[in-house]
Amino acid sequence: MSDSTRVSYASLRDFICVAFEKTGLPQGDALTMASLMAEADLQGSDGHGVIRLIPYIRRFKAGAVNLTPNIKVVQERAAMALIDGDNGMGHLVMKRATELAIEKARTAGVAWVGSVHSNHAGPASLYARMPLAHDMLGLYFAVGNANHLPAWGGLSMLLSTNPIACAIPANQEVPVVLDMATTVASFGKVKAKAQRGEMMPEGWMVERDGRPLLDPKRADEGFLLPVGGYKGYGLSLIIGLLAGTLNGAAMGRDVVDFNHDDTTPTNTGQAIVAIDPAAFGDVADFKARVDTVVRDLRASERMPGVERIWVPGEQSHQKRIDYTTNGIPVPPALKANLDKLAADLGIPALA
Amino acid sequence: MSDSTRVSYASLRDFICVAFEKTGLPQGDALTMASLMAEADLQGSDGHGVIRLIPYIRRFKAGAVNLTPNIKVVQERAAMALIDGDNGMGHLVMKRATELAIEKARTAGVAWVGSVHSNHAGPASLYARMPLAHDMLGLYFAVGNANHLPAWGGLSMLLSTNPIACAIPANQEVPVVLDMATTVASFGKVKAKAQRGEMMPEGWMVERDGRPLLDPKRADEGFLLPVGGYKGYGLSLIIGLLAGTLNGAAMGRDVVDFNHDDTTPTNTGQAIVAIDPAAFGDVADFKARVDTVVRDLRASERMPGVERIWVPGEQSHQKRIDYTTNGIPVPPALKANLDKLAADLGIPALA
Repeated sequence: MSDSTRVSYASLRDFICVAFEKTGLPQGDALTMASLMAEADLQGSDGHGVIRLIPYIRRFKAGAVNLTPNIKVVQERAAMALIDGDNGMGHLVMKRATELAIEKARTAGVAWVGSVHSNHAGPASLYARMPLAHDMLGLYFAVGNANHLPAWGGLSMLLSTNPIACAIPANQEVPVVLDMATTVASFGKVKAKAQRGEMMPEGWMVERDGRPLLDPKRADEGFLLPVGGYKGYGLSLIIGLLAGTLNGAAMGRDVVDFNHDDTTPTNTGQAIVAIDPAAFGDVADFKARVDTVVRDLRASERMPGVERIWVPGEQSHQKRIDYTTNGIPVPPALKANLDKLAADLGIPALA
Repeated sequence: MSDSTRVSYASLRDFICVAFEKTGLPQGDALTMASLMAEADLQGSDGHGVIRLIPYIRRFKAGAVNLTPNIKVVQERAAMALIDGDNGMGHLVMKRATELAIEKARTAGVAWVGSVHSNHAGPASLYARMPLAHDMLGLYFAVGNANHLPAWGGLSMLLSTNPIACAIPANQEVPVVLDMATTVASFGKVKAKAQRGEMMPEGWMVERDGRPLLDPKRADEGFLLPVGGYKGYGLSLIIGLLAGTLNGAAMGRDVVDFNHDDTTPTNTGQAIVAIDPAAFGDVADFKARVDTVVRDLRASERMPGVERIWVPGEQSHQKRIDYTTNGIPVPPALKANLDKLAADLGIPALA
């Protein structure tokens, strides 16, 4: 990363925003998308930030995404809603869904909002984190946008890396934020290894005969392994059923591989749950209890060679502080691609 | 298992019920507990059924559990409730919690009910499955009753095998039911290996210096490994925060090891979420979509040597059919212990 350009959050957001406006996204939506994508990079989710700008624009231009969607609530109860994204970008759909879940949770205590006809929305933690600003907990499930995982023992790639994210507020400590794919490695990590010319460790992928696949350039010849073997297969399946099938969104054979298909709408499904701890008891007491758990874990006796215990969310938090102060790193290859995009669109380069 | 006694569900339930009544549990509660424990065995969750009868009774006699609890709702909103179990058995608390979640979900669409001052409740899937009878989905989280898992990189055992279970109704197919500990193996499986005099496979447990621990008789000298490394650690932590800390129940250092402590109330926390698919759209359509996903997975091309693809819940379903027809197997060592219990209590032996 030492030869990476560093750019400020504001520069990155504004660059993305102008690129989207130039591509036909309405101004307000362009800014929402740009803010969330730059936020992804700011928290270190660099597989889901500006790196997606070019593929997103490619699909916009091919007509696979609706740039002026009529995002609307199509089903609603006291503690749930189903939002039809009208094939708009997932960031717009799930920001709306999360805001609605927070609003409903304030009254109902807990609320679950799902999406149908949505699209890729960036990192799961973006949405799980949103309730934190309201002293609420967030839980997010999504169907991934490419199937790289078969059933346990199978070869047909019917499942995706279907992620789960959860954010839990603390008092003086950083919130606990888990954001995990249900595969050992995400496909983004595999692509990053390929770009760096590195081999993958054993356990990430296997060949169709079950032997380890180590060369990330041959990723299309094998498949990802689920976390914990059949358990990760089960987790991916239930997340897909909760975030996709329940909402009438794509799951299994209907999932569109948005890396290899620029024209078919993905009908992506996601779900956000907001939980108001005020419904359960005193919020300050709850957050103090979270602090205690976090501190006990961090103060834990350590295995030989382990310098510190990390609680989920802390590493991302440290990146956020680093990148806010020193800028967000943009690797040279990505910078060159973004410069080319800027030239093509006739907009100022990212600086 | 070939030398196991086979007993009918009704015989097992009635035996457990009489044992509990004899120990001081009110008749109705004894029957509820017995039905749920025999149900656990019937579905093959043999680490959480009648095998727990003797340890439960040991804690009853030592005064660690309230045999006549006043189980009551202490917090309530349209889509949530918090139930204080008054230190009653978890089966009684969580059956009540699940019934309330189902009732609330019918109106609110989704409902989340947590417990505090509860106790061990048996297998997670028992409660996740209950909404199925109402064409609803169930999602269950619990704090385990003994800490066998440290933070990732740590040595202090501050976390449990905190399970997650999810049950999703299908149409002609068997419901999808996942029930998983967040560790590679549950501690029950380790104990079973020890009883059979077998070694554990590498990956279940490690010594305090990180080397594999293979001898289950030395289990107290090491700890369980989380599924997927740091991901399973994260999952166990968030499940513990959602099912324990949020409810004011024990988590982290406060978890009581009920295998080694017969007198301290556990203050166990659990959570059940009921989701009504009727709130999201047509239920028959939803269940047909689940059928499609299940059938596609089962029809998947298979890896060499794999005879069939299993969908979570199918193996348990097959056991239920086998055990309903042929009886529930009770291994000789367990049968001997139950015979001794019967003699001690002055009740007829299990037959």
